[in-house]
Amino acid sequence: MTKPLVGIVMGSDSDLPVMKEAVDMLEKFGLPYEVRISSAHRAPELTAEYARSAVERGLAVIIAAAGVAAHLPGVIAAQTPLPVIGVPIKSGPLSGVDALYSMVQMPPGIPVATVAINGARNAAILAAQIIGATNPEVREKVLRYKEELARAVEERARRLQELGVAGYLEQMGGARG
Amino acid sequence: MTKPLVGIVMGSDSDLPVMKEAVDMLEKFGLPYEVRISSAHRAPELTAEYARSAVERGLAVIIAAAGVAAHLPGVIAAQTPLPVIGVPIKSGPLSGVDALYSMVQMPPGIPVATVAINGARNAAILAAQIIGATNPEVREKVLRYKEELARAVEERARRLQELGVAGYLEQMGGARG
Amino acid sequence: MTKPLVGIVMGSDSDLPVMKEAVDMLEKFGLPYEVRISSAHRAPELTAEYARSAVERGLAVIIAAAGVAAHLPGVIAAQTPLPVIGVPIKSGPLSGVDALYSMVQMPPGIPVATVAINGARNAAILAAQIIGATNPEVREKVLRYKEELARAVEERARRLQELGVAGYLEQMGGARG
Amino acid sequence: MTKPLVGIVMGSDSDLPVMKEAVDMLEKFGLPYEVRISSAHRAPELTAEYARSAVERGLAVIIAAAGVAAHLPGVIAAQTPLPVIGVPIKSGPLSGVDALYSMVQMPPGIPVATVAINGARNAAILAAQIIGATNPEVREKVLRYKEELARAVEERARRLQELGVAGYLEQMGGARG
Amino acid sequence: MTKPLVGIVMGSDSDLPVMKEAVDMLEKFGLPYEVRISSAHRAPELTAEYARSAVERGLAVIIAAAGVAAHLPGVIAAQTPLPVIGVPIKSGPLSGVDALYSMVQMPPGIPVATVAINGARNAAILAAQIIGATNPEVREKVLRYKEELARAVEERARRLQELGVAGYLEQMGGARG
Amino acid sequence: MTKPLVGIVMGSDSDLPVMKEAVDMLEKFGLPYEVRISSAHRAPELTAEYARSAVERGLAVIIAAAGVAAHLPGVIAAQTPLPVIGVPIKSGPLSGVDALYSMVQMPPGIPVATVAINGARNAAILAAQIIGATNPEVREKVLRYKEELARAVEERARRLQELGVAGYLEQMGGARG
Amino acid sequence: MTKPLVGIVMGSDSDLPVMKEAVDMLEKFGLPYEVRISSAHRAPELTAEYARSAVERGLAVIIAAAGVAAHLPGVIAAQTPLPVIGVPIKSGPLSGVDALYSMVQMPPGIPVATVAINGARNAAILAAQIIGATNPEVREKVLRYKEELARAVEERARRLQELGVAGYLEQMGGARG
Amino acid sequence: MTKPLVGIVMGSDSDLPVMKEAVDMLEKFGLPYEVRISSAHRAPELTAEYARSAVERGLAVIIAAAGVAAHLPGVIAAQTPLPVIGVPIKSGPLSGVDALYSMVQMPPGIPVATVAINGARNAAILAAQIIGATNPEVREKVLRYKEELARAVEERARRLQELGVAGYLEQMGGARG
Repeated sequence: MTKPLVGIVMGSDSDLPVMKEAVDMLEKFGLPYEVRISSAHRAPELTAEYARSAVERGLAVIIAAAGVAAHLPGVIAAQTPLPVIGVPIKSGPLSGVDALYSMVQMPPGIPVATVAINGARNAAILAAQIIGATNPEVREKVLRYKEELARAVEERARRLQELGVAGYLEQMGGARG
Repeated sequence: MTKPLVGIVMGSDSDLPVMKEAVDMLEKFGLPYEVRISSAHRAPELTAEYARSAVERGLAVIIAAAGVAAHLPGVIAAQTPLPVIGVPIKSGPLSGVDALYSMVQMPPGIPVATVAINGARNAAILAAQIIGATNPEVREKVLRYKEELARAVEERARRLQELGVAGYLEQMGGARG
Repeated sequence: MTKPLVGIVMGSDSDLPVMKEAVDMLEKFGLPYEVRISSAHRAPELTAEYARSAVERGLAVIIAAAGVAAHLPGVIAAQTPLPVIGVPIKSGPLSGVDALYSMVQMPPGIPVATVAINGARNAAILAAQIIGATNPEVREKVLRYKEELARAVEERARRLQELGVAGYLEQMGGARG
Repeated sequence: MTKPLVGIVMGSDSDLPVMKEAVDMLEKFGLPYEVRISSAHRAPELTAEYARSAVERGLAVIIAAAGVAAHLPGVIAAQTPLPVIGVPIKSGPLSGVDALYSMVQMPPGIPVATVAINGARNAAILAAQIIGATNPEVREKVLRYKEELARAVEERARRLQELGVAGYLEQMGGARG
Repeated sequence: MTKPLVGIVMGSDSDLPVMKEAVDMLEKFGLPYEVRISSAHRAPELTAEYARSAVERGLAVIIAAAGVAAHLPGVIAAQTPLPVIGVPIKSGPLSGVDALYSMVQMPPGIPVATVAINGARNAAILAAQIIGATNPEVREKVLRYKEELARAVEERARRLQELGVAGYLEQMGGARG
Repeated sequence: MTKPLVGIVMGSDSDLPVMKEAVDMLEKFGLPYEVRISSAHRAPELTAEYARSAVERGLAVIIAAAGVAAHLPGVIAAQTPLPVIGVPIKSGPLSGVDALYSMVQMPPGIPVATVAINGARNAAILAAQIIGATNPEVREKVLRYKEELARAVEERARRLQELGVAGYLEQMGGARG
Repeated sequence: MTKPLVGIVMGSDSDLPVMKEAVDMLEKFGLPYEVRISSAHRAPELTAEYARSAVERGLAVIIAAAGVAAHLPGVIAAQTPLPVIGVPIKSGPLSGVDALYSMVQMPPGIPVATVAINGARNAAILAAQIIGATNPEVREKVLRYKEELARAVEERARRLQELGVAGYLEQMGGARG
Repeated sequence: MTKPLVGIVMGSDSDLPVMKEAVDMLEKFGLPYEVRISSAHRAPELTAEYARSAVERGLAVIIAAAGVAAHLPGVIAAQTPLPVIGVPIKSGPLSGVDALYSMVQMPPGIPVATVAINGARNAAILAAQIIGATNPEVREKVLRYKEELARAVEERARRLQELGVAGYLEQMGGARG
């Protein structure tokens, strides 16, 4: 079995439905990964152990997701030289703005590469881009994925021309119903 | 020498001018304390060690101050059963709102007793109240301090009556000049 | 019957479903408590009386919950030397940010130990930590609770390893359905 | 001497320079007033006494100013049937937004008539409007004041036409220099 | 028929369900009122006419409600010497914060007495307090209403003592079901 | 067939249900338009091509709608001398505030005429006003539309007078049911 | 003398230093303009008159600037079919966010084309784009201005290549000193 | 001369004093870099060209800095498969919150790895971590840098123990004076 290159770790299993999108995206890119639950506050030793063993276990990037006072990515980043991508999870009355600030505003010395609130898919793409920074094959996959995105937009644009606004909306309704 | 009951720890020495107010207040209450610099991100092991040894070193309360993505109080709270008071420090473009959210929005299980942004003096009063919760002598000191506060307000109220608005403002200007 | 050590007071009975979590947590810690409804604005005298009699009735800590312009914890803190824990309640169009600011931003002299919006469980844990600050037996209970939390995370982590992402999500769905 | 109709009360003497504008405006309207310092938190009894005696001392309106967790207007409003005007004071890292929320978001039953952050002048005009609601002579004064405001705008508009943009800016600079 | 003393005006008929609470409260106080729909933007002349004729039609206070860029209270206040109470309506993606800022931050000269977002009931109480400022009979009604509020809190407090937390919650559930 | 004067472009087909209101409004004004899907990020070349060809294809105004980090209007504005109207779409945890800031805060040199979050109808009216700035016939249509708006308000005002608050609310309920 | 095409109106003469940038930009484009002071609140009739006479006086666009509860652009837009550009002015404790919300969140029917806080220069460019929407000569000027902007960036880019970071910073310091 | 691995690009030369910290940090890590000025809005073609040629010119990572409606990192990310790090620049009345939202809230497909407002140093460290993800030598440098950070904290902690609070503050004052 291939050794994981990307570690996905989340503060609570309630983050898993959101983080599933990151898993799917890594599958699509064919990048080996592992998925873990840990907690900066409730399981600080498990978290420290995970962060400190990451390099020797062969990881290249860590994606860490957490909500509210979302310390997990920062706490991990403090204990590994690997790049850490933070995914602020939308939860609680502040809708993830608290998690965003807790991740993105890291002090000088220990960055967290923060993506959008609930931006699990982008975290996986960023992980692929990071590996692709020095690996042309992975970079090529990112490039092809971006071309796919462009084609999907063009396809929708074309269909809107064909169907008109009313027709397109009807079709969207149909697709949902 | 008396063993410290209150530990004051801050993420950076730039927090010291603000935290000096906590020191002064603990002096006033006659509570033994210690002051430390540590950093959840730049010195995670020092921080863990400090938190884990707090009980056996005889501390009863920890006051932790930090700015921006202010993880220090939460990271300490994760590793000690003692009550942890968080002081969000005003610094950077978000004026401490980021630090406030990073402290107060702790997830279920690991509370941080958060006071106002830059509320160092209140952190020390809260520490005294916590010790006073089960110690009538310290509680008495808190009570006397509150009476002092009330008398100071009454004294100012009386002076305003005497001097009138213009006179009082003039005197304030004089006190400043 | 045991005399209560922790007073829980809330501004409205609509806060009770949230504050029930604090009650359950204190039960778990075996700490005697009382639960009251009062209102800083609609019943100022009842509130003042409650705050002023707290020490002599043997309370060690007060937990006060309120929404919107949430003055209750501050008004109580103004009239007792005991530590007051504030729980901002999520209600109304500002989702509890108004309540958070009304509690945490207390002026110098009168702190309120503020926890997360709707953080009733953490308020109870903090109350236990405050009593445990000088009571090793209660502190021991807090410690054991934190170990439980860590074990629960580890257990979930282990199950995720076993079941994989898809399996775990399925199980979560099942648990919900 | 005339009995005061308007009570101005502020939480700290540091609010006095801002509240001076309210004093000046009441002088302009010829409305008798009194100015007091009290504090909802540091001097709760003085505050309660002030609020409860307001009607019998002949006040018709109370203007209450406070910063940060600005409970003063709400606490006064809780203890008098008179209309209470709240002036959130700009102070501290949140620039008065905390004070604004603490005043304006009062729960059903106890309103505070909130004006702009640092809006001391408007508080006084509102007090005059409140008295003028049932007193045609005072209402007439408000009306004349509004006509003055309109004339001042017209006068500036006329001067700008005359001087042109460059000339007007030069004159403004001169007025400041 | 009695001439109205309080004018309630709202920017859209969609505000009526919220403003119904103000109507009910004025009924309770026995204060004659009128209810109007106008719009600062869509019907500027109707609005101006309403504001300008308010004094001669015998109104003492105007309550104006509006959502989003809520100019209605300010535009009315600009054209009458009467006190204008603003009710920011919760609507749209900003939940009424836009409406709150558009009302409370009025520039010097033209105050709007702003109450909480959706605070229709408090607007009516404030209107009664304004009339009561110089009318002892109405003031007496406000006082009695506040006593009612206190008694209602005391009654709930008493019931909670009797029933305990579980019993009270069950009863609440029953009352809702 | 008439050549379009107004181009409506949106970042995703999920914006179409909101933007339908702009389409309907342009139909009402009888202004020829085209509707496109493009994406500043996923289809940058399609977007650039659209922007650069707008003048020669005869467009007079472009309406661009996007959510979250809403770069589309700015990216189009960078590549055409035509006026670009931006519609921030409410989507995601920040409810469109992110989209609003990404549009309205354009740097000096490249304005985007920003309307309210989800303000598709106003975008179309603004487009008509822009064309009407130099075209009296279109301006006349805008004027007539504004008169319609005023009449609709007056009609509702009249009906409220007739039916009273209770009757009107009942009728509203009926209309909804 | 040429009749003005663009009307610049501001709520206070304190906005003039900011709005000077709009004046300069219109001069650069050679578009005739007029500059006025009016106030939606302090001079409502002057404002109404200005808005209502705009079309017949030959204006094509109005730029309206105001701070805090910035109603001026909305109030003008309510009384003219011309496009109205709103410039939120940074002033007071909310730094212009209040003005931004008061302008951009206009209700359906009456749009305000809002630019950045203090975005006076962009307001003028937008005015030129609006006139250029149907006037190729003005559009050409906008195009040339955009080319100038691009060349200025290229020139700075080139200089940075030549001087290096240290050299460029030194030169910037020199330019400032 | 070594080919650059890291491209630093900024929207305006006014960002250079902040971005100088990124330059210094890359020097410290011995990573070859290039520094460019471009603008997503004022020089869209220069920006597109820069982004599209990045891979073939041998870059591994791009750091893009911009203020206000900060589209630069997103626009570059749209046109390259390389990882793009965004630095929101503090500028204007919103203090960089607008820039933060414009970067971090990128839609699915095109991530920007966002660091703190003005977080130039962290952007460079993150760039090193990204290169180090697959390059043990660079990773080693990151590791050593983190050890340096820890030692610096320990050194300050030690000095505070030695000098005490008053002595340390005096020394800080001296260092500043």
